Amino acid sequence: MERPLQQNADVEADETASLIASDKVEGTSVYNHSGEKLGSVHNVMINKISGQVSYVVVSFGGFLGIGSEYNAVPWKKLTFNSTMGGYEIDVPPERLQGAPRYAAGEEPWVDPLYGRSVDDYYGLTP
Amino acid sequence: MERPLQQNADVEADETASLIASDKVEGTSVYNHSGEKLGSVHNVMINKISGQVSYVVVSFGGFLGIGSEYNAVPWKKLTFNSTMGGYEIDVPPERLQGAPRYAAGEEPWVDPLYGRSVDDYYGLTP
Repeated sequence: MERPLQQNADVEADETASLIASDKVEGTSVYNHSGEKLGSVHNVMINKISGQVSYVVVSFGGFLGIGSEYNAVPWKKLTFNSTMGGYEIDVPPERLQGAPRYAAGEEPWVDPLYGRSVDDYYGLTP
Repeated sequence: MERPLQQNADVEADETASLIASDKVEGTSVYNHSGEKLGSVHNVMINKISGQVSYVVVSFGGFLGIGSEYNAVPWKKLTFNSTMGGYEIDVPPERLQGAPRYAAGEEPWVDPLYGRSVDDYYGLTP
């Protein structure tokens, strides 16, 4: 599910300059630094206690079958680009290609340490 | 859409001890201090820049028509109760009854100051 870049009434209802509804984040486009679209947000993983979004699960349907493969990317590695109307990943393409990835039906989050392994890959652990 | 309190394979796939997927938060039950179910999470409003969940939009379908009325509650006023498998609202019932509320189709978030008015109501502004 993709959102048009142009604002429409439906988007306005659930979006302000600074806030976006969770069910609108899902489907938002994800770009690399060159402005190429890499995929779209499948969902986000939220810390139940703090309410902080820890990971964005990006569906990279383009290169391995539509919607069948997911990358969890730490929130800190994404920046919102209001001109593009989507998120930019601050990770070199070659680093992304080898990133932890899973297919639909796999359950990596059952492992409480999965998030940490993602952080490790992106160099976010001290 | 409600989640059964008992864990099932589908919930496990998108949930760890500390993280929950955005599309699983949607539908999570919301209780008062007495353990009475007040409604369920319609969606959450996320700060696009920080990734912090600022407001939980609770659908109080029970008393004014199913799914037709929403209350935005500041994240800080909710605590996750893992025994109940849902969120508890730290607000007296009488305070909740007069809380800012809108119907399906209304677009309060178009006003960038709407969040602040919610904070004001719940006494979160200095």
